Amino acid sequence: MSRSILSIYKAAELSARLREQIVRRESIQDTSVHDTVASILAAVRDTGAQAVLNFTRQFDGVEVTELLSSRSEFDQAEAALPADLRAAFNAAAANIRAFHELQRAGLKDAELTLGGTRLGFRYQAVDCAAVYVPGGKARYPSSVLMGLIPANVAGVRDCMLVTPPTANGSVDPAVLYCARLAGCETVIKSGGAQGIAAAAFGLGGRRPDLVIGPGNRFVTEAKQQLAGQGLLRIDSPAGPSEVLVVADDSANPEWVAADMLSQAEHGADSPAILACLDLEFAQAVNQALDRGLAERPARAEWKRTSIQEHSCAIVFESKQEALDFANEYAAEHLEICTRDPEGDFQQIRHAGSVFLGHYAPVALGDYYSGTNHVLPTGGTARFYAGLGVDSFLKRMSWQYATRESLAASRKGIALMSAYEGFDQEHGHSVEVRFQDAT
Amino acid sequence: MSRSILSIYKAAELSARLREQIVRRESIQDTSVHDTVASILAAVRDTGAQAVLNFTRQFDGVEVTELLSSRSEFDQAEAALPADLRAAFNAAAANIRAFHELQRAGLKDAELTLGGTRLGFRYQAVDCAAVYVPGGKARYPSSVLMGLIPANVAGVRDCMLVTPPTANGSVDPAVLYCARLAGCETVIKSGGAQGIAAAAFGLGGRRPDLVIGPGNRFVTEAKQQLAGQGLLRIDSPAGPSEVLVVADDSANPEWVAADMLSQAEHGADSPAILACLDLEFAQAVNQALDRGLAERPARAEWKRTSIQEHSCAIVFESKQEALDFANEYAAEHLEICTRDPEGDFQQIRHAGSVFLGHYAPVALGDYYSGTNHVLPTGGTARFYAGLGVDSFLKRMSWQYATRESLAASRKGIALMSAYEGFDQEHGHSVEVRFQDAT
Repeated sequence: MSRSILSIYKAAELSARLREQIVRRESIQDTSVHDTVASILAAVRDTGAQAVLNFTRQFDGVEVTELLSSRSEFDQAEAALPADLRAAFNAAAANIRAFHELQRAGLKDAELTLGGTRLGFRYQAVDCAAVYVPGGKARYPSSVLMGLIPANVAGVRDCMLVTPPTANGSVDPAVLYCARLAGCETVIKSGGAQGIAAAAFGLGGRRPDLVIGPGNRFVTEAKQQLAGQGLLRIDSPAGPSEVLVVADDSANPEWVAADMLSQAEHGADSPAILACLDLEFAQAVNQALDRGLAERPARAEWKRTSIQEHSCAIVFESKQEALDFANEYAAEHLEICTRDPEGDFQQIRHAGSVFLGHYAPVALGDYYSGTNHVLPTGGTARFYAGLGVDSFLKRMSWQYATRESLAASRKGIALMSAYEGFDQEHGHSVEVRFQDAT
Repeated sequence: MSRSILSIYKAAELSARLREQIVRRESIQDTSVHDTVASILAAVRDTGAQAVLNFTRQFDGVEVTELLSSRSEFDQAEAALPADLRAAFNAAAANIRAFHELQRAGLKDAELTLGGTRLGFRYQAVDCAAVYVPGGKARYPSSVLMGLIPANVAGVRDCMLVTPPTANGSVDPAVLYCARLAGCETVIKSGGAQGIAAAAFGLGGRRPDLVIGPGNRFVTEAKQQLAGQGLLRIDSPAGPSEVLVVADDSANPEWVAADMLSQAEHGADSPAILACLDLEFAQAVNQALDRGLAERPARAEWKRTSIQEHSCAIVFESKQEALDFANEYAAEHLEICTRDPEGDFQQIRHAGSVFLGHYAPVALGDYYSGTNHVLPTGGTARFYAGLGVDSFLKRMSWQYATRESLAASRKGIALMSAYEGFDQEHGHSVEVRFQDAT
C-alpha cells in the first residue's frame, strides 16, 4: 500500500494528547469580526432597509431593489422547477413534517395538585421566528425545509426566511418553493450580518423572538450579539460538519469510505472519523478513499484536505472501547455500522443524529428520512440537541393556590424566607392574606 | 393623597415611547468586565485550585483551605439546623421534586416508521452539571433546591454546586443541607468568575457540560465566555427579578401592594408593574405601598427605589387590553388576580411563571409550590423558559433504514443532492450501496 491518505492509529498506542486533539476539534468562537458586525447591526437598526441594500451591494455585489421576495417571484419559482424535483421536495417535506409532528405530540401540557395547590406547565410557541439559510453561489433548499417545518409544526404565527440573493437579485427557485411548502412566504433577500440585522430589527414585518440556522462567521457573530443583548434567542453555534463511523467487520469499507467522503464534501475542515476494530478494515477504507478521490474529482481539494488533515481512523481493541470513544467524541452525525446497531445504540449518550445499520448513510438524514439536519457540531452534542419543534416552543409554569392550600404552605414559607432575609416582604405577602380574615 | 410613590398612567394616555420604555426594561449585556473575566478564566485553567483560592482571598477577603466542602462540613450543617427549618426544606424539596418529575414523565422517547425507515428520538441527560448559587453575605438555600433537584430528576450523573464561601471559609449550613437533600455532595467553595472557572475546568472532579444559575456580572460574563468557546451550555441570562400583576376589582389592593414590595425586596432595580382596570384601584395600591414602606423598613432604600424608579401602574380600559399588555411585557412572574384567572390565563402566551388567583403570591413559587424560581427576566420570557428538567436533557435523533427503505428514498436523494451540488459524494453514498448487489 502506498502512503496512506487517512491517518490510522491503534487506540492502545494513541497518546492522551493526540486523543484529546482529535476529540477537542473545534473552538467555536471567532471574535475577530466583532466590531464590523456591531457597526452593521447599528446601521441597520438606525437606517433600516436602505442600509441592508447598501451592504448587499457592497459585500455581495448584488443589486436588490425590493428587500422581500414578491408573490410573483414565488409563483415563477414554482413554475421553473421540474416536476420530479418538486415531487422529491414534497416527499422529503412530508417526512420531515411527520417526524416533527411526532415531537410536537409528545410535548403535552400537564398539571398535578400538591397540598391543594394546582400547578402545571404549558408549551407555547414563540410569536415570530426567523430562519437563516446560506445562499449566494450555493443553494440549500433542504435547509429551508429543516428550518421552517419545525417552526410551522410548533405553531409559530409568523416565520420568515433570511437568505442571500442570487446574482440577479432574486432567490433560488427551489429555496422559494421549499419556503412556501413549509408555510412561509416572507423571504428577506439578504445574507450575512445585514440579513440577520434586517430580520432582527423588524424589516420582515415584525421582530423575531428566535433566529436560527447556520451561517458564516458574520452571521454567527450577529446572532450572538443580538442574543447577548437579550433581544432574541438563537440556536447552538455551528461549526464544520462531521461524522463518526463506528464499524465492525460486518461493515462494508467501500460504503464507509463513501460516507466519509460525503462528509468531506462539505468543506476543507470537516472531520470524518472511523472507529473500527481491525487494522485491515481501516486500511481497506483508506484504499477506498484513495479510489474515491481519484474517481470522483469534484471538490477534490476540499475532500482531500478534510480527509488528510481533519480525519483519521482509530482501531480499538473492543467494540465497547469504540462506543466509549463515540460518547467522548459526541459526533454531530454518528453512524453505527455494526451487527447489532440497536443494541450498540443503547450505550450512546451523546450524538446529534444517529444512523443505524448499513443502509443509513448520513445523506439519508441530510435530505430525506425526516430527522433534522441542523445539528450540534464540535462535540457540543454533549449538551445541545439538534433543531426540533422544541426549539420553537417554551414551557410556561403556573400555579393556582386556594386560601386553604396557601395556609398549608404558610409556615414553611415563613421559615424559609426568614432564613434568607426576605421575611419582611416575601413572608408578609403570604401573611397579609390571612390578616383581614373575618 | 400626598405625592404618589407609584407612577400611575392611563393606558389610553400613555405615549408609545413611554410604553416602549416600560416594556424594554433591561438590556442584559454588560461587556465592561470582559477582560477581567477572561484573565481569571485563563489563570484558573492554567494553574488550577491555587488560582481559585488566591482570587477568593483577593476578591472576597476569605481564606479557604480546601476548595471542596468535606463530608464533615455536610454533617455539621445538618446538625446545626433547627428541625422545623429542615422540615420546611424537606417539604419544599418534595414539592419541587414532584413537579419536575411531572415534567420528566412527559418527555418520552418515541419513534415512527416512514417508508420503511424507522426513526425517532431519545432524551438523554447531560453527564455533568454545575449549579451556581450566590452566597457570601446572602444565602439562598431555596435556589440550591431549584437548581439541583431538576438535574437530579433528569438523571444527571454528576452534579456540583458552586457558591461563594462564608466569612469563615465554609458554606452556609442550609445551603449544604439542601445540596445533600437534592442528591449533591460536591460543593465548590468559590464565587464569581473564579467559581465558574473552577467548575468549568474540572476542579469539582469533572468538567460540566452545563453551568446554570444566576450570579453577578462576573458570573454571567464567565458563563457566556465559556459557552461562546463551545465548552459548555448555559441557561438564559438573568436580569433583575420582576413581577407584573394583572388585577380587576376582585383583587385586594393591600395584597397586590405586598406582592409588589416583595419583588422590590430583591434589589433597587426590580420592576413591579400593576396592570389594572380602575384608577381608584391603582391609587389604593399606591397608598398601601406607602404604608408598607413606612411599616416595614428593612431594605427601605432598595424597595423605595424599585417602586419609584422601576415600577408603575397602568390603568387599562378593558381586561383584554391588560392581558395584551401582559403578553407584550412577558413578565418573569405574572400574577393574574382577577375573577376568572384560569380563563384569563388562556390568553397568556408569554410569561415565566404564572400565579393564578388571589391566594398565589410570587413568594409561594419562590419557595414552596414546586415550580422553579429560576426564570427568564427582562422580557426574555417571549423566547426562554425557566429552568426545568429539560434544561438538563437533550434530544438525540436516530434513523434505521433497510435496503428496501433506502431504495425507496434513492431517487429523491439523488435529485435533491444534485440540485445542491452534492451529488458526487452525498448522492454516491446512497448509490454505492446498490452497486455491488448480487
